[in-house]
Amino acid sequence: MKTFITRSRRLKGTPFTSRLEKQGVKSYTIYNHMLLPTTFSTPEDEYNHLKEHVQIWDVSVQREIEITGEDSSKLMQLMTCRNLSNSKIGTCYYVPLVDSEGGMINDPLVYKLEDKRWRVSIADSDVLLFAKGIAGAKKLDVNIFEAKIDTLAIQGPKSYKIMSQIFGEKINDLKFFRYDFFNFNGNKFLISRSGFSKQGGFEIHIDNVKAGLELYDHFFKIGNDYNLKPGTPNHPERIESGLLSYGSDMDINDNPFECGFDGYVDLESDIVFLGKEKLKKIKKKGIKRKLMGVKIDFKTVNVSEEVPIFDLSNKEIGKLRSATYSPKFKKVIGIAMMLIDQCKISQKFKIKLNGDYASGEICNLPIK
Amino acid sequence: MKTFITRSRRLKGTPFTSRLEKQGVKSYTIYNHMLLPTTFSTPEDEYNHLKEHVQIWDVSVQREIEITGEDSSKLMQLMTCRNLSNSKIGTCYYVPLVDSEGGMINDPLVYKLEDKRWRVSIADSDVLLFAKGIAGAKKLDVNIFEAKIDTLAIQGPKSYKIMSQIFGEKINDLKFFRYDFFNFNGNKFLISRSGFSKQGGFEIHIDNVKAGLELYDHFFKIGNDYNLKPGTPNHPERIESGLLSYGSDMDINDNPFECGFDGYVDLESDIVFLGKEKLKKIKKKGIKRKLMGVKIDFKTVNVSEEVPIFDLSNKEIGKLRSATYSPKFKKVIGIAMMLIDQCKISQKFKIKLNGDYASGEICNLPIK
Repeated sequence: MKTFITRSRRLKGTPFTSRLEKQGVKSYTIYNHMLLPTTFSTPEDEYNHLKEHVQIWDVSVQREIEITGEDSSKLMQLMTCRNLSNSKIGTCYYVPLVDSEGGMINDPLVYKLEDKRWRVSIADSDVLLFAKGIAGAKKLDVNIFEAKIDTLAIQGPKSYKIMSQIFGEKINDLKFFRYDFFNFNGNKFLISRSGFSKQGGFEIHIDNVKAGLELYDHFFKIGNDYNLKPGTPNHPERIESGLLSYGSDMDINDNPFECGFDGYVDLESDIVFLGKEKLKKIKKKGIKRKLMGVKIDFKTVNVSEEVPIFDLSNKEIGKLRSATYSPKFKKVIGIAMMLIDQCKISQKFKIKLNGDYASGEICNLPIK
Repeated sequence: MKTFITRSRRLKGTPFTSRLEKQGVKSYTIYNHMLLPTTFSTPEDEYNHLKEHVQIWDVSVQREIEITGEDSSKLMQLMTCRNLSNSKIGTCYYVPLVDSEGGMINDPLVYKLEDKRWRVSIADSDVLLFAKGIAGAKKLDVNIFEAKIDTLAIQGPKSYKIMSQIFGEKINDLKFFRYDFFNFNGNKFLISRSGFSKQGGFEIHIDNVKAGLELYDHFFKIGNDYNLKPGTPNHPERIESGLLSYGSDMDINDNPFECGFDGYVDLESDIVFLGKEKLKKIKKKGIKRKLMGVKIDFKTVNVSEEVPIFDLSNKEIGKLRSATYSPKFKKVIGIAMMLIDQCKISQKFKIKLNGDYASGEICNLPIK
């Protein structure tokens, strides 16, 4: 069913919203209390375009929490199971945040800007309140606030060429998950080689709205040569690529091992974080569930709650959490939390979608 | 501009969503990562109906955080400037939550269910993460989780009659901001005399989905006698009544004094809460801004960001945060954060809305 969205100050737009509306944005989701565009044409057309050309996405909803002060590194570490003690200025870190039960709070990208200055580019939950709760309780010497940053993602194989035309050739020296500062039109932008697709690209972090709007308009001035289009994080592409969406694929009831983040959990060194003791117990006991890919012999799907997955003897073996039609596989693909003892790669299953039973198959993430 | 909303597991529906859609819900907002209906017909028709008859609202978005355990009362108090030390089982408390800077985190209704068991019915921010941050940092002996509660509000002058037909006459012995348990069809419901309107009514807290759906259907089975309609928190009514909306009228950058919550701030007793020292400083220094009502000589408005308000000599004296056309006053009414030294009740001002200048007048909240 198609329903409209009601705006208010509580659901913030971005400096780019009026431009996106002129460019024909058709639908939004809400992410971090802000508007995130979801389609301009169709997810399938946008999938094909993203894989071949280049898109510009307004991802200002990735709100950036800044933590500064004497205890800022201590606070950053308290929130995550990933060892940040050797983190470097100029690198981005994908960081599972966990509570004292080992539950996932968020999975931001963290930027160390200075020795005592961190930027946390968050998924859809109020990380600011978690950080403020810890800091207030421990009376830490920190300042925690939302930085006034709006973010544009430039994604797709032609992103390298259009970015170098604007920011110079040296932008292509930037390695994956590194960031640096680049100039356009006399304004400096923090740019990271990152983004919520596997088609390559950059995220431009804008601290000057006027400069950001000039940059946005410049992209479209020169964009025809690259078939640049406005776009959005693409549901089929991100599921195929195994990029998890906090709140859809995982939430506070899941731990980092269940989400496949084993490589980001340090229980051996002497780092101090809230969930350490609990994660040790979970690791010792072993996990029962894990996020897996699925392919389903179906053409359309709209998942807005967990859907149970059954083995061929009708025993429930997992729950589908995200799904979409894949233009590549010509069937539905998805991400599901599966009972690991009950299933293996390529195993067939049954699921009821849109009132009909369909058969499916378990696969790895990313989905190949 | 009318745009559609894209559903996913991240934006949860409620057990009532499919019924609301059959009943013709036209638009939603997102509140606490969930769907909150905003219109079935028009805000004006719904305003008039609410003031005369009775409506049933799906306000399950008021997610309920439960805090239990030995340190649960300590944690509840740490989060708020309101003195909870004498709070009683059976009473609801409107409670400003504040961080260590004295900034507003949320303004929930708090229910003390047992001596060591609290329910926090929250406005639109992740209070769970704030509570978990504090508890994790202080290693408090508490269990913090989201209770599986869905809430129906029965609002309007005929709510008393329809509720007594269903739950018996003793429901009308319940005083304002009190709660008790009542039976229907063999199921027990926690019911509070509360709700986000000033037209009278109740909130039914449902812990059994099947029983809740049966109750919902029963309301509409007998509802014709009362002209019962599905409804939503009504923007004109709530602004007129001075009921504040967290995220729209106030946020983390505002303190409780600026929001008019002086009566809920205890700086004198020995209670311990995160923002106490900071609020003492703020009180000593005095506040510069305060939320006020405004009336504007205009017929339509759609506020999705702060709009500056100017005095007649073009000096900025405040910012409009929420506004709507009022069927009662036949003009726009709103809630604005005003510089208190620069303005007084009945003072005229200028504001630019929809590209045109309009004149307005400052008034008290509620707006009379």
